Amino acid sequence: MTSQKSHETTYETLDWEVDADGVATLTLTRPDALNAFDLTMARELEQVFRTDARADDVRAVVVTGAGRAFCAGMDLSAEGNVFGLDESVRPTPEEFRAAYDEPPYDAGVRDTGGKVTLAIHALPKPVIAAINGPAVGIGATMTLAMDLRLASTTAKIGFVFGRLGIVPEACSTWFLPRLVGPQQALEWMYSAQVLTADQALAGGLLRSVHEPDDLLPAALELARSFVVDRSPMALALAKQMVYRNGAASHPLEAHLSDSLAMYWTSIGDGKEGVAAFREKRAPRFTRKASQAPRIYPT
Amino acid sequence: MTSQKSHETTYETLDWEVDADGVATLTLTRPDALNAFDLTMARELEQVFRTDARADDVRAVVVTGAGRAFCAGMDLSAEGNVFGLDESVRPTPEEFRAAYDEPPYDAGVRDTGGKVTLAIHALPKPVIAAINGPAVGIGATMTLAMDLRLASTTAKIGFVFGRLGIVPEACSTWFLPRLVGPQQALEWMYSAQVLTADQALAGGLLRSVHEPDDLLPAALELARSFVVDRSPMALALAKQMVYRNGAASHPLEAHLSDSLAMYWTSIGDGKEGVAAFREKRAPRFTRKASQAPRIYPT
Amino acid sequence: MTSQKSHETTYETLDWEVDADGVATLTLTRPDALNAFDLTMARELEQVFRTDARADDVRAVVVTGAGRAFCAGMDLSAEGNVFGLDESVRPTPEEFRAAYDEPPYDAGVRDTGGKVTLAIHALPKPVIAAINGPAVGIGATMTLAMDLRLASTTAKIGFVFGRLGIVPEACSTWFLPRLVGPQQALEWMYSAQVLTADQALAGGLLRSVHEPDDLLPAALELARSFVVDRSPMALALAKQMVYRNGAASHPLEAHLSDSLAMYWTSIGDGKEGVAAFREKRAPRFTRKASQAPRIYPT
Repeated sequence: MTSQKSHETTYETLDWEVDADGVATLTLTRPDALNAFDLTMARELEQVFRTDARADDVRAVVVTGAGRAFCAGMDLSAEGNVFGLDESVRPTPEEFRAAYDEPPYDAGVRDTGGKVTLAIHALPKPVIAAINGPAVGIGATMTLAMDLRLASTTAKIGFVFGRLGIVPEACSTWFLPRLVGPQQALEWMYSAQVLTADQALAGGLLRSVHEPDDLLPAALELARSFVVDRSPMALALAKQMVYRNGAASHPLEAHLSDSLAMYWTSIGDGKEGVAAFREKRAPRFTRKASQAPRIYPT
Repeated sequence: MTSQKSHETTYETLDWEVDADGVATLTLTRPDALNAFDLTMARELEQVFRTDARADDVRAVVVTGAGRAFCAGMDLSAEGNVFGLDESVRPTPEEFRAAYDEPPYDAGVRDTGGKVTLAIHALPKPVIAAINGPAVGIGATMTLAMDLRLASTTAKIGFVFGRLGIVPEACSTWFLPRLVGPQQALEWMYSAQVLTADQALAGGLLRSVHEPDDLLPAALELARSFVVDRSPMALALAKQMVYRNGAASHPLEAHLSDSLAMYWTSIGDGKEGVAAFREKRAPRFTRKASQAPRIYPT
Repeated sequence: MTSQKSHETTYETLDWEVDADGVATLTLTRPDALNAFDLTMARELEQVFRTDARADDVRAVVVTGAGRAFCAGMDLSAEGNVFGLDESVRPTPEEFRAAYDEPPYDAGVRDTGGKVTLAIHALPKPVIAAINGPAVGIGATMTLAMDLRLASTTAKIGFVFGRLGIVPEACSTWFLPRLVGPQQALEWMYSAQVLTADQALAGGLLRSVHEPDDLLPAALELARSFVVDRSPMALALAKQMVYRNGAASHPLEAHLSDSLAMYWTSIGDGKEGVAAFREKRAPRFTRKASQAPRIYPT
C-alpha cells in the first residue's frame, strides 16, 4: 500500500494522508499537549473536513492521535478566554437562531466543537475513529459524529464536562443517546467518569477494542472494506439516509428520500452493479460522492 | 389447531392461511428462485397487507419462506429494467414530494420495496418474521418493518446494496438505526457483509435464533401469546403508539395520543378487562382492530 | 449523613426527605396496598415533582416504595370509574389538542399517569428509580421517565396493559422504544408478561440489579456521585439537552441549543470549573438549577 500527500495545505495541528485506495488518515498532531484541542485545531479540523476530505479521491477517513493520546480535550492551559466566546453578546434563543452563522454569534457564541462535528457529520463518506489513548471532553464528543469508533485497550473515554461546570457540547446530546440510549448517556454525562475501553465497549459506544499495535491497521482495513468495489455516490446517499431517516418522525419520510436515492443509483451505478453481478465480476463504478443528487428538499 | 383459508384471493407468489386463533401464516412461495422478490411479489405483498391481513378475524401475521430460503432479494435474473423505474422522469425532491403517489412518480419512481414495508408498518396488529434461511437485500429490509424477527440457525442476513452500487431501500434507514443503533447499521450497510444468525442476534437485529424445525412453531406460539385474551383494538393502538411516539420529538406528543387511546379503551374493552381481573376470569373483549379510534390528527 | 424534612407539605401517599447533600428520597407509602396508584397518589406525585423537588436545595431524587412492592399499578379495587375519566366528553384528536389542559379535557380525558411522568421529565435534575419489588402497569411506566433504573433481585416489572384491554400510558411509548428499542418494547407490551429483574436488565431497561438490602444505598450513592462538586445549572441543561436533542431531527438543532448552554455555563460556573482544575482543588459552583437560561425557543 503506497501512501501519498494529496494536497498542498499545511496544518499546524493535523496531519493528513491519503493512500492509494482513497483511505485518508487524519492525525491530531499536538502530542506534547496530548493533542489537546485549541482554537487552531478547531479551525483546522473544520477546514479539513470541509475541503480536503471532500475531494473525490478521498473515499473514507480514519481519525487518530499522534503519540499516546487521542485528544485530551479542550486546552485549558491557554491564556484568557479558553472557549473563545464574547461575553457581551448574551443572546436569546430567538436572536441566536435567526442569525447563528453571522456576527456576533458565529464567532462569539457558537460552540467550536459543534462546528467541527457538524463538518464531520456532513462529510458524505465513512469516517472511523481510531481512539488510540485518552479521549476526554471534546476528544470524546468529536468521535460521536464519526460513524464507527474503534479503540485501543489503552483508551480512556470521558464526558467530563460536569467536572468543569459546563455542559456536553459538539452535538454530543444528539449523537450519544442514539448510540447508547438515554439511560447510559445520562449516567456518563452526570457522573463525568472516565471509562475504560472495556466499559465503553460494554455500553455500546465502541465498535471494537484492539491491542495498541493492531488498532490503526484494523481501522484502515475496515475503511478499505467499505470502499473497495463500492459506489462512492451510493455510499454518500446511504450515510445521509441513515442519519436523516433514522431521526425522521415517520417511515414515509424514508420512503420519499430512499425512492429518489434508489432511482438515481439504479439508473446510474446500479446498472453496472447488476451487470457485474450477472457476469460474476467486480463492478467498475464511476459515480462520485460529489455527484450525489439531492434527495431531500433542504 | 385447525387451519383454514380465510379468503378467495389467489396469489402467484404467496400463500396465506389463517388459523383458528387468528394467527395468519404468510409464506413467500417462489422456492425454485429462493423466493426472490419480483414486481409480482411486490404487488401481491402490498395487497395482502392492505386487504386480507386487515380482516378482523386476522389477529397477527407470521411471515416466512417456502423451501430453504426466506427471500434472496430482488430477482436480478429478470429481463430489462429490474427495478421497474421510468428513467425519463428524473424528478426533483420537490416535484416528487408534491405528487409521489400519482403518475408518473407512483409507478416510475417510487421504491417498490418501500410500498411493501409501508403496508406492513400500517397493519394495526403484530407482525413477526420467521427468517428460515437466506434473507438478502429486500429479503432483509422487508423484515425490518415487522415487529419482531426470529431466525433459524441457517439464516443469513445481508444488507448487500453496496455491492450493487445502489442504496438500502424499503424504509430500512428509518427502521435499522432504531433497532441496532447508527454505528451497527452503518457498518452493516457500508460493508454489505452477509451476517450469520448469531451475528445478527448479537447486533440486536433478531429477537431469537432457533433450530430450523423449531422456528415456525416458535413464531406461531409467540404470535398466539400476543393475541389470545387480548383486545385487538388496544393492540392496534399500542403498535401505532410505539412507532409514532417512539419517533416523536417530545413526550407531550405521547401524552396527547395516549390520553385518547387510554380514554377510548378504558371506556371500551377496559371495562371488561377490569371486571375480568376482579372476578379472576379470562376477559371477553369485543372491540376490533378496525374500530380503533383516531388518536392523531393525521 | 444527616437527614431532614425540607418542607411542610404533608402527603397521604408519599414520604419525602432530603439529605444534607441535597439527595431526596421519595417513597410511595401505601404498603398495605402494595403502593397501588390511585388518584390521590397521582395528584401528589405531580405536586411533589412540580413543587418540593424544584427547590434549589434538592439536587437529585431517588424514588422507591415502602414495604415489599415498588408500585402494584393502578388501584383496581377503587369504586366506580377507576381511571377517573368523563365518558361523555368523547373528543376528536383536534378538539383535544386544542385545549388538552382545560376543561373538560384536563380532568375528563387526560391520562393521569402521563401528568405524573411529564412532571418527572420536566424536573431539571437527576431522578433515579430504586425498584424494590413489583412494579406493574403505571408502577412500571412511571419509572421510564426517570433517568436511571436500579432494581432489587426481587423486582418484577410488567407492562401488563394488554391483559386489561387498555394501552400502555404515561408517555411510555415515547420512553420505552428509546431505552430498549422497538422490537423489545413491542414484545413486552404485546405479551404483557411480567419480567424478572434479570430479564429487564438483559433487555436494557435496568441500569443494574442489586441485593434487596443494597438497592437503596446504591441508588443514593449514585445520586450523590451525580451532584457533589457539580454545577446544578449545568446538570439541568445537560438533562434537557439529552432528551430534547436526542429526539431532534438534525444535529444542527443540538448545535443551536448546546452553543447557548455552553455559552452561559462557560461564562458562569465554567470559569470556576476551569480555575479549580488549574489550581487542582474542588470547584465551588454557585449557579442553581432554577437559574438555567432558556436555550430553546419554546
